[in-house]
Formats: sequence, C-alpha cells, structure tokens
Amino acid sequence: MTQMTVVDVEVCVVGAGVSGLKCAHALVNDKSNKFSPSDIVVLEAQQRIGGRILTDTSSSKHGYSYDLGAAWFHDSLTNVVLQESIDDGSFNFDTDGYYDDKDIAVYAEEDDGPLDMDGLKINRVVEEMEKFIEIHFFENLGTEDMSLPQILVKYMEKYGSRLTTQQKKYCERVTRYYELWDGISWDQISAKFCVMDHNGRNLYNIKGYDFVIQKLAAGLPEGTVRKNQQIKSIDTSNASYVEVETTSGLKLKTRYVVLSVPLSILKLEPSHPYGISWNPPLPKKMSKALDSLHFGALGKVIFEFDTVWWPTDQDRFLILPKANAGNVKKELDDIPPPYTYPTFAVNYAAVHHKNPRASLVLLTQAPLTNYLEANPEKAWTYYKPMLSKLAKGSNVPDPINTITSPWTQNPYARGSYVALHPGDEAEGINHFLGTDNGYGPGDERIRFVGEHTALEGAGCVHGAYMSGQREAQWILDEWKQKASL
Amino acid sequence: MTQMTVVDVEVCVVGAGVSGLKCAHALVNDKSNKFSPSDIVVLEAQQRIGGRILTDTSSSKHGYSYDLGAAWFHDSLTNVVLQESIDDGSFNFDTDGYYDDKDIAVYAEEDDGPLDMDGLKINRVVEEMEKFIEIHFFENLGTEDMSLPQILVKYMEKYGSRLTTQQKKYCERVTRYYELWDGISWDQISAKFCVMDHNGRNLYNIKGYDFVIQKLAAGLPEGTVRKNQQIKSIDTSNASYVEVETTSGLKLKTRYVVLSVPLSILKLEPSHPYGISWNPPLPKKMSKALDSLHFGALGKVIFEFDTVWWPTDQDRFLILPKANAGNVKKELDDIPPPYTYPTFAVNYAAVHHKNPRASLVLLTQAPLTNYLEANPEKAWTYYKPMLSKLAKGSNVPDPINTITSPWTQNPYARGSYVALHPGDEAEGINHFLGTDNGYGPGDERIRFVGEHTALEGAGCVHGAYMSGQREAQWILDEWKQKASL
Repeated sequence: MTQMTVVDVEVCVVGAGVSGLKCAHALVNDKSNKFSPSDIVVLEAQQRIGGRILTDTSSSKHGYSYDLGAAWFHDSLTNVVLQESIDDGSFNFDTDGYYDDKDIAVYAEEDDGPLDMDGLKINRVVEEMEKFIEIHFFENLGTEDMSLPQILVKYMEKYGSRLTTQQKKYCERVTRYYELWDGISWDQISAKFCVMDHNGRNLYNIKGYDFVIQKLAAGLPEGTVRKNQQIKSIDTSNASYVEVETTSGLKLKTRYVVLSVPLSILKLEPSHPYGISWNPPLPKKMSKALDSLHFGALGKVIFEFDTVWWPTDQDRFLILPKANAGNVKKELDDIPPPYTYPTFAVNYAAVHHKNPRASLVLLTQAPLTNYLEANPEKAWTYYKPMLSKLAKGSNVPDPINTITSPWTQNPYARGSYVALHPGDEAEGINHFLGTDNGYGPGDERIRFVGEHTALEGAGCVHGAYMSGQREAQWILDEWKQKASL
Repeated sequence: MTQMTVVDVEVCVVGAGVSGLKCAHALVNDKSNKFSPSDIVVLEAQQRIGGRILTDTSSSKHGYSYDLGAAWFHDSLTNVVLQESIDDGSFNFDTDGYYDDKDIAVYAEEDDGPLDMDGLKINRVVEEMEKFIEIHFFENLGTEDMSLPQILVKYMEKYGSRLTTQQKKYCERVTRYYELWDGISWDQISAKFCVMDHNGRNLYNIKGYDFVIQKLAAGLPEGTVRKNQQIKSIDTSNASYVEVETTSGLKLKTRYVVLSVPLSILKLEPSHPYGISWNPPLPKKMSKALDSLHFGALGKVIFEFDTVWWPTDQDRFLILPKANAGNVKKELDDIPPPYTYPTFAVNYAAVHHKNPRASLVLLTQAPLTNYLEANPEKAWTYYKPMLSKLAKGSNVPDPINTITSPWTQNPYARGSYVALHPGDEAEGINHFLGTDNGYGPGDERIRFVGEHTALEGAGCVHGAYMSGQREAQWILDEWKQKASL
C-alpha cells in the first residue's frame, strides 16, 4: 500500500497550462483577499509548467528560441493576453511581434515559380467557396455536416463551370491550408465549422510565449504549483469536499476542482493509464459531449540551415498538395509520397524582421504530425522535394538541425487542441461551462477551463486564458454569495 | 378642365424598372391564369422602360455599348437573375460575363507607380478596420452611429500604434473606396452599415443589362406598359378600389397598386412637381421610415480614347484621394482640386477580355456625380491628373469622347439607389414590406417593390427583381385565399 499525504485546500487546479495558471493567479490576486496562499494548489503532471505553451531555448544550433506550441496572438483586436502584455510592458510591440500576414506565397509541384495568385484570382474563388459553405449550412440549420472535400465537390458541381481552367486546377488544393489551422487532414475536417471568423489580424509572437507563463507563475506564492503530480481520480461523492488523488500518492480534499487538463485527457477511459477515474462516473450528457468533440495534432517541424537560401520577402510559404492525394487521414507507418499533404512554412528570415533567422518553421497536421514527431529523422526526406520549390530548381542544402514538437508523443498532451470532425457539435463546448446545461448543478464544484471550453478564442492562448479568468470569477462570485447568506 | 380617361384594372404597376416589370411579368405569366392581359397595366413616367438599368448603345464613338446604371451581378452565388439567365440561355457565361475581381491596382498622388499593396499589407489592415467597425457596433447593439471617417479615428486612436508608417499613410484613404459602393462621400456614409457581406464574387455584365429588361418586356402582352405616364396621386379612400391618376390625365381604378418608383420619388413632398399626392396622407410611421433612409448618387464618367495607353493586366484602378480632403460632402459649383475624391475606374481593356476596349469607366460619388452629370465637359479636366498616374508620368492623350450617366439630372431618378447616412435605420427597409409593421394592413392594396425594399440584394438588380417577384406572389396568394373563402 502506497503512503498517502492528505492536504486540505479550497481550490485544486489540475494542470499548470495557461488556463490553470491564470485561474490560480486570479484567485490568489483577487483584491478581496478571500484566499490565503495555502488555499490554492496547482497540480501539474509534468516536470515543467506551461502545457501547450512551450518555448524551446535549448534545441537550436543557432541559439534561437522556438515556440513548439502556441506562437500567434490570434484575434489581435480583442486579444486580452496581448493587450495586457502591452499595457504591463512585458511585450514590446515593435520588437516582440510581427504581423506575418502578407499574402501567402503559393507553389505547386507542376510549376516552377510561385503561383500568380492575384492574376489567377484564386483567393477570390477560395473566399467564394467559404461563402458557399456558410450559406450551405446556415441557411438551413439542420443541414447535415460533411467533410471539407465533400462540400467542395458540391461547390464544383454547382459552380465549377464558372471557374477558369487554372482556378479549377488549384483552388481546392489551396483550401487544404485549413489542415494547418485544425491540425487534421481535410477529409477529417467538419465543413460546417471549418470557416473561421477572426477579430483582427494574427500577430506572430517572436518574443516567445513563455513570458506569459512566467508572468503568471511569478504571481503565485512559492509552493503553489506541485509538479510531477498526475491526476488519477476525482471523487465527488462527499458533499463537504471533493477528493482528488494523484498517481504519486498525493490526496487532496478540496472545495473546488478546476480541471485544466486537455480535452485529450478528458476523452480517455478511466481505466487508461493517463485517464481520470470519476466517482460517481461522469454524467451521460458529459460523456456524450466529450464524444462530440475531437482533438487535433498540429505539430511543428523546424529546419535550421547554415544560411538563408529561400526568398526573404515572403512571410509564409504554402506548397500545394497534389490534386488527388486520396485518403490522407490514414495513420502513417512511413513517410508518405511527396505532395501528399500541404506544406506550410513560416519564414523566420522574414518574421524575425530585425534579426533574420536561417530557419523555416513548418506546421504539420495529423496523421503526419504523429509520424514525424515519432520519427524526426525522416522529416527532411519528406519535405525536401516540396521545400526545393522555394529555390527555383537549384539544389538546396541539407539542414544543420531538425527540431520537432513533442505533442503526440507526450502522454499528457496527446495532440494539440480541439478540432471538429464532420458531425461534431461545436455546441459541445458549452457543456464545459458549469451551468445547468453543463457538468450539472449537482457537481458545480468541478470547473472546466482550457482552450476547449472557450466559446471565444477556442484553441487559442487567449481563449484558454479567459477561461481561467472566467472560472476564477465564478468561484469568487459563489464565495461572495455564500458569505452574504 | 383636363379630359380624364378612366380604366379599370386589377393591378396597376407604377414604374417599368426591373422590379415593376418583374412583378407584372410574374402576374401575367402565373400558371393559375388568374389574370387576363388586360387586368395588368404598367405606368411608366418616361419615354423608355428599364429605370436604372440603361444600356447606352448610341453615345460611343467606337460603337461600344455601356451600362450607365447597374453593371454587375453582385452576390453571384445566390443571384437569381444571373442563374435564370444562364439557365434560359440568354446569358452566355463565357462571353457575356467577367469576374473583374483581381486585387485593385492602387495609386497615390505622392508615388510614381502602383502601391505594393501586398508588401505593405494594406488590405490586412483595411480588413481589420472593417472588423473593428463590426465589433464596435454589434457587440453593443445600441451603440450610436457615426460617419466612416469618425469610426476610423476611433480605430486609429486605439490601434494606430500597431500600424507601420506606410499603413498609417494609406489605409484610411483606401477605405474611401466605399464611396464608390454607396455613391456618397465617406463623411456621409453610415459607419454602422457600411461593411457589406457578399454572397460570392461580383460578375461584370459585359453583355449589357438591357437584355434582362427586354426579356421581361417581351413576356408582357402588347399595351401593358404605358409610357409617359407620370404618377400624380394615389387615393385609397374608397374601400372597393384604389384610384391612381397621372399628370397626363389618365385615371385608373385598380384593386392593387404596385409602387415601383425610386425611393427618391417617395421621399418628395406631395406638392413637389415629381412627388406623389396621397389621399389620405401616408401614415406617420411610413413617412418616418422614408426619413430614416437616404438615396445616393453613384454615377459614371466614361472616357473613350483612340488607343489603350494604360495597363491592360489590371481589372480596376483606384487612385487614392489626398489625406486631408476636408468636407467632401459639400455641393460643388466647380470641379474640386485634384485628389479630392477617390477615383475608381473599371478597365474596359481587361473586362472585355475577348475584345479589349479603349475606354475607362469611372464610378463617381455624390456630390461629384451631381456636378459632373450637369457639366460633363469638365470631367476630363478633373480626372486627368489622377488618370495620368496610370501612364507612369508620360503624357496621356485626351479622350475622343466623354459619356456621363444621367441619374442626378433625370427628375424621375434623382440619383442612384439607397445609401445609408449616419443615424439611418437599415430596418426602415422593412417598412416597405406589406406586413403589420409596414405600410399597414388597412392599405395592403399598396405594395412596394424596388431595390430599396429588398432585405437581400438592397441596391442591386437582383434585389429589385426578387422584390417584384415577392409582391406578385403576395397578390397571387391573397387572390387564392379570397377565392377559397
């Protein structure tokens, strides 16, 4: 029998990613001083904090740092993380950020140089395809979902005759850039929910996102975060406290649990080595909600070179996949043929505009992410033919270093963030909110935070951050309400 | 005393523009054969039919034709006029249409060549400005309206520090292209309603829009349309019929009146020589609704040249106005200084892609439209400095011909189409629908059609067309309902 340590706390936050840290930070730093430092504990399964924010400073051969997880401030008009960081001086807009939103330079296997996207008016057609999708699903709300390639077949049937030969050749392949938003292959992407609306431009965070994590951690009393504490079970059977137990033998009695674990962990069976055992079991509507959402695997492959050999006047490159790539969602046991997936690269020679860097940061999608994160040594073999397009036919040098993200190989992450498959229900996100329609009033002591619980900024740092703030506020409000009774 | 002719009809359509003709066509051609040809009459004030569709075939020195009014199929994904014309063979997609939606080539007074819009990432900022406007007004629905330049001041105050020097220099001036959508100067444009959503690409109708009018007219029995019949009064005081009288002495007793006159006519006082006298007067809520909508003056200036001297690989040109153009809504009594207004030209050397034409079709906005339509001989003097930008500094030849649209000088048009000023209510359009909230059930015999009554396609040919169909259907439905009693 393992020895048990029992702790009594007010709030146990499970997971020291941005949402959990923000929640703990908001509770500890609330002006009402309701909580003393020892009232709050954050359990983190890993040896490091930050979750899917991970600024790697040790892998580069050039001494560069790379965000292997989140890297952009999306929705920059309404992004509270960005605004607060500018306001508190931790983010210098001129040196720490870059809008990498020049039109993407697009290449195709069959062409030598970049495509004349403007002359061929390809973006206008892609925009029209997106509008078609919106009209298709939202004019009649009950319309059945399908995959992205399936809805494009419908578009082509109806309007293909209005496209030029060149537009027909390229436009569908261009839409596969959505794979690099969702981290899944297009035949897995829900057509209904694929078209996004952005609150302003996307700002690339060239400072490295870790500063946000460090800022939050610095605002917590020493000892608040306990690392290497993997959650094992949550017991809500006692009305006066919730009992949380970790695999290392730590047992906590707490008034509230704030669950900041990824959706990928919540979706595991209780019997799974990384799953959570619930007593009593999760209510049916909750497990149904978990089934109605999927989790993607956006990854990164970073190639460092001796010198920059590609165009420096482009922010981003997209090398199109071939037209008939077939069933691309199938798990890979070797590298696929070239041009099976769209290749998307962020140009660090342009994005780091003050100090150009000799590296290309590629985004990858499942199932390629899973394969390449497990086999990083194969990455250059797969990508060399596509990246050679950027050199206009001349030989390209081999990289001096290859870095891959860890997400699919990390049992505590198991992928990247929420990604909707055909038939998924975006409304499922609502179930994480502790309302009557959520986890249920009988268990309001369990609060869910994280990017997968965010109605605004789902999948984004600021969405996770605001979700932490949201649940801290809920706990504080309930506290005040109880105090006034 | 004038001699009166009295006619008894079922439906009197007032105005032979596209909405009126479509309504009459739908009534006459309804499969139920409820109406005999003599039941329907269309009164047209002018000597010609078509209203604000006007394909000019006689003014060109090259033998070209020009649409002086509507010229695009907007919302081409859902445009019924386009779809029906393709289906019935009257519009050949390959030869009769052209998507003139290549990124606009933009020039500025202070620069020699076209701006590097992509490199300067100007469109991204303009898109963000539009998003800012949307968020500003629709996050809190009661937010007070203002003009376009006023909302941009707010954007710049809040986010100007995130723009590059070049973006600051150009972006606000680029947004003045909205003047060429609305036909009014930006300081008259409602910020709240300026950002549009389009159902697909815009297709330039190079066949000439008159074919739509001719098709509808050909489907009406001879004698249905009576020209030179300006409406003078509408009397609804008798429950068994509505009495309509024209200035030429024609008097009709009719069961229904379909009013297809422009908003500009409806807004006139009854005492105005072109106004309509109502007995009893229009209900208060109706005159209030009319006050809450404005009417723009989009016009055209067409320059024909001996040969093409400008770039042939661009669809459209935008020459930016200067930064501080001041109060540009003020009525003009002479041509303004160069660069006071944005100059927008459709390149007929590109749009007529099968047979390039040596002409530039400029769109104009009030108050410039009003001045130039009255003084066409001044048009080249005003536009020469701006259009010279397209020649990269070399001398440009004078045009061999200048054609202007007639809209502000035509007392039956008085401008172009609905355009919302700050504080206007887009919902005012609802008042034209014959519901309880509209003109009122007591006067359901009066039906309103036209672009200004269209919730979808407002200001567009297809919006006007569908409004004609809508009211024809209403009349047919009511007829059937009464027949079944």
